[in-house]
Amino acid sequence: MLNKILASIHHQLLKKEKTVAVAESCSGGQLSNLLTSLPGSSNYFILGVVTYSNESKQKILNIPAKTITKYGAVSRQVAILMAKNVRKKTGADFGISITGIAGPTGATTTKPVGTVFIALASKNKTLCRLFLLPGQREVIRNKSVGEALRLLYAQI
Amino acid sequence: MLNKILASIHHQLLKKEKTVAVAESCSGGQLSNLLTSLPGSSNYFILGVVTYSNESKQKILNIPAKTITKYGAVSRQVAILMAKNVRKKTGADFGISITGIAGPTGATTTKPVGTVFIALASKNKTLCRLFLLPGQREVIRNKSVGEALRLLYAQI
Repeated sequence: MLNKILASIHHQLLKKEKTVAVAESCSGGQLSNLLTSLPGSSNYFILGVVTYSNESKQKILNIPAKTITKYGAVSRQVAILMAKNVRKKTGADFGISITGIAGPTGATTTKPVGTVFIALASKNKTLCRLFLLPGQREVIRNKSVGEALRLLYAQI
Repeated sequence: MLNKILASIHHQLLKKEKTVAVAESCSGGQLSNLLTSLPGSSNYFILGVVTYSNESKQKILNIPAKTITKYGAVSRQVAILMAKNVRKKTGADFGISITGIAGPTGATTTKPVGTVFIALASKNKTLCRLFLLPGQREVIRNKSVGEALRLLYAQI
C-alpha cells in the first residue's frame, strides 16, 4: 500500500514538476530515505534534515529556542515551523516535517509515547496533523512516515 | 551482522560520550535512520542532512560550487568536505558522509554505477574510502550504509 502511494507521489511530483524538502525528528531520516528510493527522485527531492537535537532544530531550521521551551520539541508549533522553514530554506514547493515521541522514554504527562505531529507547508497553505500512534519505537517510526506520505499524497 | 555493529556503535558512543553527525547523498537518510533506531540515540546523534542536490551541498554544507564542478558531487574531495563540514557545523565528535552513484542513471565514463565515497572526520583525522558496490539501486544504497557503519565502528 505504501509502495503504491510512494509510486503515485513520485509520478505526480515529476509530472507537475514540484519539489520537496523534509525535516524529520523522531522518524530519523526514514521519510527522506523513502522519498529518494525511486530512480529519478533527484528531480524533486532537494534536501532532508534530521534535526534530532533541539540545538539542530534551532541552528539548521531557525526554530526559536523559546518556542521549543514553551511548547516542547514535539508540538504543533514546532512541527509547523519545521515544515515552513525547511521549505523556505530550500525553495521547495512542499516542506514536510515529523516530530514525535517514538519512545520508550520521552513521554510527558500530556504527551504519551506515540504522540506525533506531522506538518506540510506549501505556498498558500500549512497543515498540521496530530497522531497518537500505537506500538513500540520502530512501529511508531514506521507509521509516522506512512502518515507523512499519505498527507503529501493528498496535497500534491 | 549489521545489527551487531550498530549495537556496538551505540554502546561505544554512549560509553565514551561521543557524538555523531551525518551528511548523506545517495543513501538518502538511511544512515541517519539506522543511527537513530536504538532508544537512547538522542544522546549521541546530533544532526543528519540529506544533501541530495548540489545546491543543498553548497547551501547546507558550504561545499564550494567550484569543488563540485571540478571533481564532481561524487568524489573524494566532496565526501571529505561533507564529513568535515557537518562535523564543524554541529560540533560533533564524528562527521560521516556518503556520496555515490546508486543508479540506474548518473554514471560517467570514469565513475560507474556503484561508485561510492565514504568519509569519516574526527578531531585529528579524516579518512575517505572508495567503494565500487555491485547490485542495483536499493542494494547499493543499503551496502553503502553498511560500509559507513563499519568505518565508524572501526574508528570509535
